[in-house]
Amino acid sequence: MADHTYSISEIVGSSSDGVDSAIRNGIAAASQTLRHLDWFEVKEIRGHLNNGEIADWQVTIKLGFRLER
Amino acid sequence: MADHTYSISEIVGSSSDGVDSAIRNGIAAASQTLRHLDWFEVKEIRGHLNNGEIADWQVTIKLGFRLER
Amino acid sequence: MADHTYSISEIVGSSSDGVDSAIRNGIAAASQTLRHLDWFEVKEIRGHLNNGEIADWQVTIKLGFRLER
Amino acid sequence: MADHTYSISEIVGSSSDGVDSAIRNGIAAASQTLRHLDWFEVKEIRGHLNNGEIADWQVTIKLGFRLER
Amino acid sequence: MADHTYSISEIVGSSSDGVDSAIRNGIAAASQTLRHLDWFEVKEIRGHLNNGEIADWQVTIKLGFRLER
Amino acid sequence: MADHTYSISEIVGSSSDGVDSAIRNGIAAASQTLRHLDWFEVKEIRGHLNNGEIADWQVTIKLGFRLER
Amino acid sequence: MADHTYSISEIVGSSSDGVDSAIRNGIAAASQTLRHLDWFEVKEIRGHLNNGEIADWQVTIKLGFRLER
Amino acid sequence: MADHTYSISEIVGSSSDGVDSAIRNGIAAASQTLRHLDWFEVKEIRGHLNNGEIADWQVTIKLGFRLER
Amino acid sequence: MADHTYSISEIVGSSSDGVDSAIRNGIAAASQTLRHLDWFEVKEIRGHLNNGEIADWQVTIKLGFRLER
Amino acid sequence: MADHTYSISEIVGSSSDGVDSAIRNGIAAASQTLRHLDWFEVKEIRGHLNNGEIADWQVTIKLGFRLER
Amino acid sequence: MADHTYSISEIVGSSSDGVDSAIRNGIAAASQTLRHLDWFEVKEIRGHLNNGEIADWQVTIKLGFRLER
Amino acid sequence: MADHTYSISEIVGSSSDGVDSAIRNGIAAASQTLRHLDWFEVKEIRGHLNNGEIADWQVTIKLGFRLER
Repeated sequence: MADHTYSISEIVGSSSDGVDSAIRNGIAAASQTLRHLDWFEVKEIRGHLNNGEIADWQVTIKLGFRLER
Repeated sequence: MADHTYSISEIVGSSSDGVDSAIRNGIAAASQTLRHLDWFEVKEIRGHLNNGEIADWQVTIKLGFRLER
Repeated sequence: MADHTYSISEIVGSSSDGVDSAIRNGIAAASQTLRHLDWFEVKEIRGHLNNGEIADWQVTIKLGFRLER
Repeated sequence: MADHTYSISEIVGSSSDGVDSAIRNGIAAASQTLRHLDWFEVKEIRGHLNNGEIADWQVTIKLGFRLER
Repeated sequence: MADHTYSISEIVGSSSDGVDSAIRNGIAAASQTLRHLDWFEVKEIRGHLNNGEIADWQVTIKLGFRLER
Repeated sequence: MADHTYSISEIVGSSSDGVDSAIRNGIAAASQTLRHLDWFEVKEIRGHLNNGEIADWQVTIKLGFRLER
Repeated sequence: MADHTYSISEIVGSSSDGVDSAIRNGIAAASQTLRHLDWFEVKEIRGHLNNGEIADWQVTIKLGFRLER
Repeated sequence: MADHTYSISEIVGSSSDGVDSAIRNGIAAASQTLRHLDWFEVKEIRGHLNNGEIADWQVTIKLGFRLER
Repeated sequence: MADHTYSISEIVGSSSDGVDSAIRNGIAAASQTLRHLDWFEVKEIRGHLNNGEIADWQVTIKLGFRLER
Repeated sequence: MADHTYSISEIVGSSSDGVDSAIRNGIAAASQTLRHLDWFEVKEIRGHLNNGEIADWQVTIKLGFRLER
Repeated sequence: MADHTYSISEIVGSSSDGVDSAIRNGIAAASQTLRHLDWFEVKEIRGHLNNGEIADWQVTIKLGFRLER
Repeated sequence: MADHTYSISEIVGSSSDGVDSAIRNGIAAASQTLRHLDWFEVKEIRGHLNNGEIADWQVTIKLGFRLER
């Protein structure tokens, strides 16, 4: 594994269902353009409210992916 | 949207089910007294343990709501 | 000054003009309902963008005010 | 304990005596208006100086209290 | 409750299902060796990605347990 | 708004005029290459000094923009 | 002192008297099982409230102790 | 630039006008006694309120200056 | 109060008695060389242990003092 | 230097040798695709262990580079 | 890798040589009692000074190791 | 050791060689004017890049030194 370099992207995934679903949606969208995704870290969990209910969940995550040489 | 003012309240929602449910319960309770709720942010996730199992989940959230003029 | 108690409220002031103006607007709105305001602290500076320009500036501030006895 | 909701207030207690006394004074003042106080957390310890001595100690604390249903 | 002492352990629970499940798995494993578990706090949520999907969720938690005298 | 994904870029805008101007300059430069810019957050305010005066203000901001599907 | 290794334990000491006493109680309990205790750092000060008064003070501390070779 | 050493001083500049002016005032005062000032970083923005208006803005900044050899 | 500048010094006061005493000792020592001391903020509370007891308490504080013009 | 804009990228460099080498490797890899690199900041130092020894060092750094106009 | 649980220990490694060496010494000492060490994270770098020179480097690290079932 | 007071200075040491060397250079420069240096803590590691290589390493450290009475 020595001398690999990774790049980190920060995205916000959203969902009307909950925390796990917002993370999965964000990763699914990112995986359409980023290859070699290796790990994620949750940075912030928030969301919008509408009429006293959660309209959407928004989870900010960092995504690490290996750079090709 | 210019010149609106928002106020931020901090609450702890709890549930015996999990993170999402504790957040939903806290917002439902707050929406009984606060109007114009606009967003939430998760600040802390914790809970009590009993006999090696999770007795309740407690999620601290900040709630933003628009002040009426 | 001994034994005074202060309460802290968190608000978000907004403006289409800039950081200082958003803070002033938030304090002006809060001063309509809170008396004995004593200090403020800036917690976050952010805003919305529209067509590549700043639509509104939003500054989260904490407000300290003395409780009357 | 399931499904209780708590609200969190932030106050600054002060005293000419020291840290513990400033916390106790703040809680005593808050308990005159807030019921069902459940816990506190210290956020900041500071104070004013006068002629090279401590004129008052100021301790910022968060107070959690159970919302009645 | 006076004069009890608690110790805090830090663990990482994992799961292929989601955040709540990773927390539950970590607590279940810890409860096999630690008695008198009293509370948990979530410190970090992350996970590994494989082929653009979440291979496992990893949640770092602190566990508080009462020391016996 | 459900299931949108946002990406976050970090930039440093600079100006010889002040904080607001440095933010505006950074956003103007970023909007030449990034579409669907939605919000910004200030992360750091600093600058260079020359002969005891501010030569330039530098403000680090995060920019959120919606990913097209 | 070169090449010594220290281990760090995290505990919560409690007391009905105040901050100093909670720290002393936690260290006294820990010193029954840990040898070569070398330093402590306060991480969090909190407590439980009952009928508007402090029922117990709880101080989270990290304890450093030298590992024997 | 190699092997230069810098020292960092922390000051609070104030102004009745706004954030930028408080920073400029603080730097102007510091530049009367510190030579070779090289950069500044904003650490905290706060101020005093009087009759619901901002009496003075106070900005805490760190100042880096090169040590002469 | 407008346009005053304050400088901030960081010191560590110590005592064999407790937190309040360590703070008072540090301020007393600093006041022998610094004039116009205006406020203090506690940054860290720690100490050395000897034979399972607290040998000395060490409290890191920041001291703000007004610069004379 | 006025009105330049910088972009910030986050990468993880790795090495089997140590902290400095992991930073150098990450910068060397990034410099193959990023021009006008201007500064770096270390955000995290970690690594993998194998059989009780360090298999690789991983250092997360932010890289600032000037945007061309 | 699913459903593994990891435990995290915090130690301080020291050396008279430098940062890398202090980390290696700490891990070598810990590996004598902990099995299945998997990763480390640096939390703090500090040291003691004597006669204006570094007497020892002290690096606080967290160590993750897999719990056996 | 009781009742000693320490002062803390913040400096930035630099080097073209690496992290350890930048720390040593900063301490060597500071020891020419500060007596009774007792400990250091690393606060930030960064540096300038030139042509894709590290031109200098800059390490911000806090230095604690005992005040003479």
